[in-house]
Amino acid sequence: MSDRMDFYFFIGSTYSYLSVMRAESLAAQAGVGLVWRPFSVRTLMREQNNIPFATKPIKMKYMWRDVERRASTFGVPFDGVPPYPIDPNELANHVATLAALEGWCKDFTRAAYRKWFLGKQDPGSPEALREVLQALGHDADRCIGRASDADVKQAYAAATERARQLGLFGSPTFVVGDEIFWGDDRLEDALAWCKAH
Amino acid sequence: MSDRMDFYFFIGSTYSYLSVMRAESLAAQAGVGLVWRPFSVRTLMREQNNIPFATKPIKMKYMWRDVERRASTFGVPFDGVPPYPIDPNELANHVATLAALEGWCKDFTRAAYRKWFLGKQDPGSPEALREVLQALGHDADRCIGRASDADVKQAYAAATERARQLGLFGSPTFVVGDEIFWGDDRLEDALAWCKAH
Repeated sequence: MSDRMDFYFFIGSTYSYLSVMRAESLAAQAGVGLVWRPFSVRTLMREQNNIPFATKPIKMKYMWRDVERRASTFGVPFDGVPPYPIDPNELANHVATLAALEGWCKDFTRAAYRKWFLGKQDPGSPEALREVLQALGHDADRCIGRASDADVKQAYAAATERARQLGLFGSPTFVVGDEIFWGDDRLEDALAWCKAH
Repeated sequence: MSDRMDFYFFIGSTYSYLSVMRAESLAAQAGVGLVWRPFSVRTLMREQNNIPFATKPIKMKYMWRDVERRASTFGVPFDGVPPYPIDPNELANHVATLAALEGWCKDFTRAAYRKWFLGKQDPGSPEALREVLQALGHDADRCIGRASDADVKQAYAAATERARQLGLFGSPTFVVGDEIFWGDDRLEDALAWCKAH
């Protein structure tokens, strides 16, 4: 079996909330190590003219209802529709990249999503981001400063380029070798693939 | 519990193949009667500027791989990518509407999908459509003639209007009361909803 799975995500993706809240424990139960990989799905979606919700109000209304229902099924807290879209400058995603480099990506991403979905604040706004970082015990000034350093930007661009090469087009996507599984609703399929290959 | 579920579909939707092949038996196991409702998802998608695959080759490549994987999981036959798109004049969908009026929609739709996915022919082409109808023991000339009669066209338009009112945007969609579940991957959720409500 494969004992490692890459979890490509973008803070700003709605369905990724479900995966952020449940992927780690499901992967652990399956004996699979999860590698958290923030990437700019927004860049790829723009390249591919892939606009799932922003210009499609009927589909967007369904999406929120579906997220709500599935959150309930999974025991994930949901408290109404949060602000959308968020993180216009991808600052939260750059901080997530810094966190990945330094080993605290999972905790940061979960806290950022809680700030967004439950606190109803954009974790990409400097104020909310500071609160998230401080609550985790990090130096907010240092982290936000580092997020715009060349090495962090390069790491984010490299993850996005790797995602492009793999044929990704959405978040979340789970990657096992060259096999890709798009959507929180493919998390179980991806883990089953790990077990079988 | 709800003992009835509407199955809105469009012959031409790729993922609907999986539902066409497996929804009836899962619904029967759950004690739920399935009402097969052909509708013009193409009309609604055009209205909503919802173009999931035709202009998105990267997403389309993934979609076929995902259909293949899930077909394998479900024990549904899959033999490579069939022609796409199909049924340009929605003739197969009009015949499905006639079949729904006359009580043989399930058998026709399954046969049309087999012709498409396994026979690699467009079931909306008159030749392939005749073969499908004849193999089911129907008078192909009568059925194809009836498909353009006003009552059949009106029934198809009425199903599409009902779908529009319900907020549908894709095929397959399962409807329980006013609750909608989009995608073959929500079939189990929809049946669970029937049980719980």
